[in-house]
Amino acid sequence: MNPNNQNKMYKWANDLFPICRSITGEGVRKTLNYCKNLHPEILIKKFHSGEKVFDWVIPDEWNIKDAYVSKLNGEKIIDFKNNNLHIVSYSIPINKIVSKKELLEHIHTRHDIPDAIPYITSYYSKDWGFCISENFKKTITENEYKVVIESSLKKGEMNYGECLIQGKSKKEIVFSTYICHPSMANNELSGIVVSLSLIENLKNSDNYYSYRFLFLPETIGSIAYISKNLKNLKKNTLCGFVLTCMGNKNNFSYMPSRTGNTYTDKVILHCLNKYGGSFKSYSFLDRGSDERQFCSPLVDLPFASIMKSKYKEYKEYHTSLDNMSFLDSNALSESRDILLKCIYIIENNFFPKLKLFCEPMLSKRNLYPKFGGAIKSDKTKLIKNLIAYSDGKLDLIDLCELFDVDFTEICKTSNVLVENNLLSKKLI
Amino acid sequence: MNPNNQNKMYKWANDLFPICRSITGEGVRKTLNYCKNLHPEILIKKFHSGEKVFDWVIPDEWNIKDAYVSKLNGEKIIDFKNNNLHIVSYSIPINKIVSKKELLEHIHTRHDIPDAIPYITSYYSKDWGFCISENFKKTITENEYKVVIESSLKKGEMNYGECLIQGKSKKEIVFSTYICHPSMANNELSGIVVSLSLIENLKNSDNYYSYRFLFLPETIGSIAYISKNLKNLKKNTLCGFVLTCMGNKNNFSYMPSRTGNTYTDKVILHCLNKYGGSFKSYSFLDRGSDERQFCSPLVDLPFASIMKSKYKEYKEYHTSLDNMSFLDSNALSESRDILLKCIYIIENNFFPKLKLFCEPMLSKRNLYPKFGGAIKSDKTKLIKNLIAYSDGKLDLIDLCELFDVDFTEICKTSNVLVENNLLSKKLI
Amino acid sequence: MNPNNQNKMYKWANDLFPICRSITGEGVRKTLNYCKNLHPEILIKKFHSGEKVFDWVIPDEWNIKDAYVSKLNGEKIIDFKNNNLHIVSYSIPINKIVSKKELLEHIHTRHDIPDAIPYITSYYSKDWGFCISENFKKTITENEYKVVIESSLKKGEMNYGECLIQGKSKKEIVFSTYICHPSMANNELSGIVVSLSLIENLKNSDNYYSYRFLFLPETIGSIAYISKNLKNLKKNTLCGFVLTCMGNKNNFSYMPSRTGNTYTDKVILHCLNKYGGSFKSYSFLDRGSDERQFCSPLVDLPFASIMKSKYKEYKEYHTSLDNMSFLDSNALSESRDILLKCIYIIENNFFPKLKLFCEPMLSKRNLYPKFGGAIKSDKTKLIKNLIAYSDGKLDLIDLCELFDVDFTEICKTSNVLVENNLLSKKLI
Repeated sequence: MNPNNQNKMYKWANDLFPICRSITGEGVRKTLNYCKNLHPEILIKKFHSGEKVFDWVIPDEWNIKDAYVSKLNGEKIIDFKNNNLHIVSYSIPINKIVSKKELLEHIHTRHDIPDAIPYITSYYSKDWGFCISENFKKTITENEYKVVIESSLKKGEMNYGECLIQGKSKKEIVFSTYICHPSMANNELSGIVVSLSLIENLKNSDNYYSYRFLFLPETIGSIAYISKNLKNLKKNTLCGFVLTCMGNKNNFSYMPSRTGNTYTDKVILHCLNKYGGSFKSYSFLDRGSDERQFCSPLVDLPFASIMKSKYKEYKEYHTSLDNMSFLDSNALSESRDILLKCIYIIENNFFPKLKLFCEPMLSKRNLYPKFGGAIKSDKTKLIKNLIAYSDGKLDLIDLCELFDVDFTEICKTSNVLVENNLLSKKLI
Repeated sequence: MNPNNQNKMYKWANDLFPICRSITGEGVRKTLNYCKNLHPEILIKKFHSGEKVFDWVIPDEWNIKDAYVSKLNGEKIIDFKNNNLHIVSYSIPINKIVSKKELLEHIHTRHDIPDAIPYITSYYSKDWGFCISENFKKTITENEYKVVIESSLKKGEMNYGECLIQGKSKKEIVFSTYICHPSMANNELSGIVVSLSLIENLKNSDNYYSYRFLFLPETIGSIAYISKNLKNLKKNTLCGFVLTCMGNKNNFSYMPSRTGNTYTDKVILHCLNKYGGSFKSYSFLDRGSDERQFCSPLVDLPFASIMKSKYKEYKEYHTSLDNMSFLDSNALSESRDILLKCIYIIENNFFPKLKLFCEPMLSKRNLYPKFGGAIKSDKTKLIKNLIAYSDGKLDLIDLCELFDVDFTEICKTSNVLVENNLLSKKLI
Repeated sequence: MNPNNQNKMYKWANDLFPICRSITGEGVRKTLNYCKNLHPEILIKKFHSGEKVFDWVIPDEWNIKDAYVSKLNGEKIIDFKNNNLHIVSYSIPINKIVSKKELLEHIHTRHDIPDAIPYITSYYSKDWGFCISENFKKTITENEYKVVIESSLKKGEMNYGECLIQGKSKKEIVFSTYICHPSMANNELSGIVVSLSLIENLKNSDNYYSYRFLFLPETIGSIAYISKNLKNLKKNTLCGFVLTCMGNKNNFSYMPSRTGNTYTDKVILHCLNKYGGSFKSYSFLDRGSDERQFCSPLVDLPFASIMKSKYKEYKEYHTSLDNMSFLDSNALSESRDILLKCIYIIENNFFPKLKLFCEPMLSKRNLYPKFGGAIKSDKTKLIKNLIAYSDGKLDLIDLCELFDVDFTEICKTSNVLVENNLLSKKLI
């Protein structure tokens, strides 16, 4: 592991943390521009407000300059500039004196976590509101308050980022993450910075598969993207990963695809079983991220997730407690590394098939001398097992589980046999 | 549950109990006429003696006026008029003095239940006999007895009843029960009265499927019926139930079809698992009723049974102890009700398939407000799960087992989604 | 069991024990001639040195007259005439004085079994060597020794034996065993003598299937045989058995085919489960005999093995301890008998299919009276079960496992039903 990279991911998250993101607006563009500065390969694209995407319509663009609640004496008691979670996302503009009662009707708290500011949105019903801690709510005792929200809702754009790292094959591995969450770190800056680190790892590599990274507003963004790119996604997606909640200290979690038996599930389960320590498997019944769109029955793409703590399963989720001190450099690295392991396996996996009738004569090919000393017997055993089982129906993942050897080992050895013209390669 | 119906079923059984039934004859016609009086939709049909049905031939019609054994002084010691189980069914006529030895060769008892009169038949080998309790047999001590059987075996008819309740679809749910058992209550008046109650429930309903009820002499009756109706049965039978042993106090029992994996088995197992309490599953190796014909390899129809105590598995089976006091009103109601549950599920089940790409926008359809208060979150969850999993490969039974919700719930909610044009219905 | 046969198998092994076999040469021909004397049906065939067989080339023929190591005073300390395991198979000729150091570089022992002479070969790299016990090695203390090996390596033949016992069908059951092991009893005279006993049992029987017995040098022999006979093997092999390690006292062992689900595996598992006592199942990962060739991916024949102790799993394996006192007459008989049981099942198994709709009328066929007394109820039950389950998809092995009856019983009863025109026979 490269300690530099760890620092990078954490640093990137730290830079992006203060920006007030939503599903549209300046915050999204700032975020995307930051990413594009790191990787010019990322293209910033857009949908227009009012555009129809499947069953949905792209909403107006929302921007916000300022928002606060003040006592009538001018003292600001809630100030958006202190924490952009204070404002309900997509709040309409307002500027008036309201009674305590009316104000409280627009105040959101979390009774169960009295010191946390909750994260609330109101994308599709015109409303306004402020989010504060339950503790602070007790200090709202005046009869009247001034409420100011300097926001705008206008025809505009919904932006997203897309980065294709072209490999030899048109078959793609797709990674999708969100850019719509305001100041929260694990959900969802972790997905963005892990994506950036994967791009860094892949963009100068000699990849067999193509890699596509999507930086989308959640739900409406993935729906819009799928509506525009369904044909290509259906034709070329070999594996898909939703990147979310990858940055807190915890064991790994696994969210399967709808059917749980796609190639993505197979790769993830192999990786987690071999390298993931003790991890928690969820059911697709527990889904809650963009796999809801990618795995939707008619879309039916092979998307699954590796997370640290799953969304909804940790206390800090969707509150101000999901902040930079909740984020952990090591956790980000572990998440990125397990995905690199998945990528390594996807790049190298194939269905080996013995090209000869009966066992080949290994000694005349000098296959043995290549492996010296004490390791020899294991290598020889692996060669013989590969020859015995390479019937073209089992891939290297199946075989390394059957033989109980590491994928790296089987990969090297099977390639030696391919070079010696003993095995043919059938790709997945 | 309707206490009226309970009484009805028990009362019908009570009315039918005294009739001396066999596979042919007046007893069968009396029984069928009683049923037709309740439901004129029941047609009384016939086969003729000597008619060939597959590997079998319809036997002569058997009728009996009187039968007794008396001492030479005229004192009747065994009298058919006291209990029609006293006579071996299909006994040939006789009128002579016999030695004690000869008499005893024609006497049947049950050593293991000394106070019970057994039920014995001799349909296909010409013989005569009397059935008495083991205890009473000890009183047969005279040297000679007079034996009188006023029976007749003549070319005639084999009758059966058939009732079709036509639904919108030609696909049928078939219920088959027996009319050949003399004075025994659980086996087999229970099947007849449960059939009559189901007809009562179904005949004025607006059913999607068609319902066919068969009142047959066991074995020869079902063979004859199948031989005449095989093409329709093969083409249209969606589910089949053999109704037998449904009226004693006990948990439910389940007799699967030959393969155990027909749609009937699926419906029954779902119902018993959800609503049947603790029940006992048998193997088709334990079969013993008309599933022997309906599930025969070349016939291969999806027939299975829900019983209370299975035939052969309770002491009173095929003896005079299987009488009206062994029959239980509540048990009859429970049996009828679990079948109504099966019918409800069959009527309402389908394979839902989402009609849109990605998740639909639910809020614009006002789907949420339809469900108020505390229930809302569960309903919303169910809607979202239905949308996520409706891939056209899982039916509502699969889905309610997957989601752990009641069939009624999933049925209502999925129909709301169908009405909103979100799901399409593919029938089973 | 015929005690005569037991003695025969042991006696044959005893006769063959002293011969110095290898993959080619006089020892192989002597062995095959001995077998042909017993069964003239065995044909002695050959490949020529230099012939290409798949990836391999038939090696030169190796013969040996004498081999010893002596002190310079003429005293022989290692003498091939005492035990032909003393010489490394395929040792090149030599006649010279060597230093102790050089001699020891050509000496093979077994550190783990200090009193055993190991069995070592060097077929494909030109070398020479002697095998002695670790204990004896300590006595090699002189500075120089004379080494004499009077061997020859010349163009010649690789011989093998083949015996076809033609049955009514062209479909074959193939048995393959080795003729290349020098003086070792369990591995591999046991396979040879069990083969000879099976030929004795089969050659005068009226078999439905054809039986082919192969006596091959291991690996190169099976590769050569397959290369010449692949088309016929693929077309006609119904079952294949590698016969090896069948003669020591122990429970049975089972080596599956590569997939573990061939018809051979099914027959073997049924036999071992029913008649094999407690037995040990190995994985194909533990393979080590000619199933390596017969089950090779592109060859893909249904070969598996029943053994006593599996090769590599007993201490005496490939040493001088695998001698005639390690061989056990009873073990040989048990091995032969379990194979005869497999043969009986293969000869008699079929997929029964009921020819009639519904149950047939059994009484008119006098099927019951054929079975008298107390057995009747079991026989009747079996007849009824056969009628109920004969859907043409389950064979007699499946059915006897389902019904929990012996194969002999189900075989007899199903044939009675075939004779009565109730069941049709579909062969495997």
